[in-house]
Amino acid sequence: MQALITGGAGFIGSNLADRLLAEDHAVTVYDNFSTGQRDFLLQAHQNKRFRLVEGDLLDRERLTQAMAGHDTVFHLAANADVRFGTHHPERDLQQNTIATFHVLEAMRTQGVKRIAFSSTGSIYGEPQVFPTPETAPFPVQTSLYGASKLAGEGLISAYCTGFGFQGYIFRFVSILGERYTHGHVFDFYRKLLSNPHEIEVLGNGQQRKSYLYVQDCLDAILLAMTRAQEPLNIFNLGTEGYCCVNDSLTWICDHLGVQPHRRYSGGERGWIGDSPFIFLDTTKIRSLGWKPRCTIREGVIKTLQYLQHHRDLLLRR
Amino acid sequence: MQALITGGAGFIGSNLADRLLAEDHAVTVYDNFSTGQRDFLLQAHQNKRFRLVEGDLLDRERLTQAMAGHDTVFHLAANADVRFGTHHPERDLQQNTIATFHVLEAMRTQGVKRIAFSSTGSIYGEPQVFPTPETAPFPVQTSLYGASKLAGEGLISAYCTGFGFQGYIFRFVSILGERYTHGHVFDFYRKLLSNPHEIEVLGNGQQRKSYLYVQDCLDAILLAMTRAQEPLNIFNLGTEGYCCVNDSLTWICDHLGVQPHRRYSGGERGWIGDSPFIFLDTTKIRSLGWKPRCTIREGVIKTLQYLQHHRDLLLRR
Repeated sequence: MQALITGGAGFIGSNLADRLLAEDHAVTVYDNFSTGQRDFLLQAHQNKRFRLVEGDLLDRERLTQAMAGHDTVFHLAANADVRFGTHHPERDLQQNTIATFHVLEAMRTQGVKRIAFSSTGSIYGEPQVFPTPETAPFPVQTSLYGASKLAGEGLISAYCTGFGFQGYIFRFVSILGERYTHGHVFDFYRKLLSNPHEIEVLGNGQQRKSYLYVQDCLDAILLAMTRAQEPLNIFNLGTEGYCCVNDSLTWICDHLGVQPHRRYSGGERGWIGDSPFIFLDTTKIRSLGWKPRCTIREGVIKTLQYLQHHRDLLLRR
Repeated sequence: MQALITGGAGFIGSNLADRLLAEDHAVTVYDNFSTGQRDFLLQAHQNKRFRLVEGDLLDRERLTQAMAGHDTVFHLAANADVRFGTHHPERDLQQNTIATFHVLEAMRTQGVKRIAFSSTGSIYGEPQVFPTPETAPFPVQTSLYGASKLAGEGLISAYCTGFGFQGYIFRFVSILGERYTHGHVFDFYRKLLSNPHEIEVLGNGQQRKSYLYVQDCLDAILLAMTRAQEPLNIFNLGTEGYCCVNDSLTWICDHLGVQPHRRYSGGERGWIGDSPFIFLDTTKIRSLGWKPRCTIREGVIKTLQYLQHHRDLLLRR
């Protein structure tokens, strides 16, 4: 594979880069380092089949040049911040929707026709069906992030029909593991370092969420791209369960040996547009023979252990 | 109502302007006249509650200024050309997705919170369920047009959740009637004027499509905006049936008194991304008391009669 990974210096992207290089593929990382970390590419830089292009997806000319000579794009770059969408509504449009269009156009210009895309369970809005299958009833968007990812899915699908692309759309739950740089484990750990006696929990703590360990996520992506060969292939990726925010906080506190008083901001949702229950039906990806190796609890602890060894990351954002 | 209509010089928009003015609402039309027609506003110009702002939706500053003082936006401006999306992939993104974002941001800036949006049955892609309800299984986009309208729906939905907007999303079948300026009746009539002995039909002529007369469409929109008061209200708009392209051509030929030889380009679809069967479930809008007054055949004939009296329109595009 001659792979180009957008957002390849990020959490999932850099893990993917290492994995592909280990499997003898050539890898180009395209990243603007807005949230990506140079340290995450230290291992990749050891490999002579690795190339880094520092660039922004909104710089279409640079992207188009970088695209030449590849056969597969893993489009992982995104504004992945679900919570603060309403603080800067243009960011999701630019960095998710328009950026995805630029990726597709750069591919079309250079004759690259295979794309994998990191979509999200957020596009199901507040679903009525649990676990939520890929064919759930037509959802209503409740966040700018979800809307921008749905727009990206739509563009990729239209390019599959209109230009003979092959597309792999992966709707992720939240991903956990090494190189994790934002999300609830990050937030809780940072808060507890600053004050181990009291912690604020957004919402009522009863929100039910699902998580997946990053290496399990990569296993699923790479397996799907080997075994599924439709023009467009859509897969939910998640574990076969969920946990409450409160459970997750308990695991974190137990691991750290702290017992903070929990103060709840209240309400069913952590913020406007937060989905109180995320649980995806993963029957489709499991039917290809995939199974996650880590439970949610194990994923949370691995993440926490990683952050404990990389406390500098807590300061960078 | 202090209404602003984007694309108000177009087919549906200008009919809506006349209707709203007749009901004593104030109407501002915002149009760049890329496909809108000045003639369509002659009647509106007679009314002192009418105002025209000539501007492009991509000109955000002008749009934001024009938005001030309104309470309701009918966002009808669009690149409505489904067929040629792949000839210029950026057009749907710019004129549909980004333009819709600009409308929403102009509204937010000016404190306008009520929006009606002309979406399309094309967002169902090639559905598996007929008639297709608003809650059909999560569809796959098969055209850039559909993808761009889906993106617009997503943005509007996210603004309803995130910023307290009230949204009305109308998924239209093809609309027929006075001031119609593109579509199959237009194409067939133009071809038959040029050669009444032979006509090319795209696809095999068996494509099943649904149509709605423009005044019935406006009845439905205005009724829904009176009776439905959820934060987000989504309605399919169409007739309770469909016809084959071949049937429609027969009605047109009978009306014109011609009997051309039909030459088929072949295949189930008229073009890449054409949906061979469009038939929307309109139970939801009917439950509010709406019923179309015109059959599809009557709509086709009214359209043809209008074009016969406005043959100059055939030359303008």
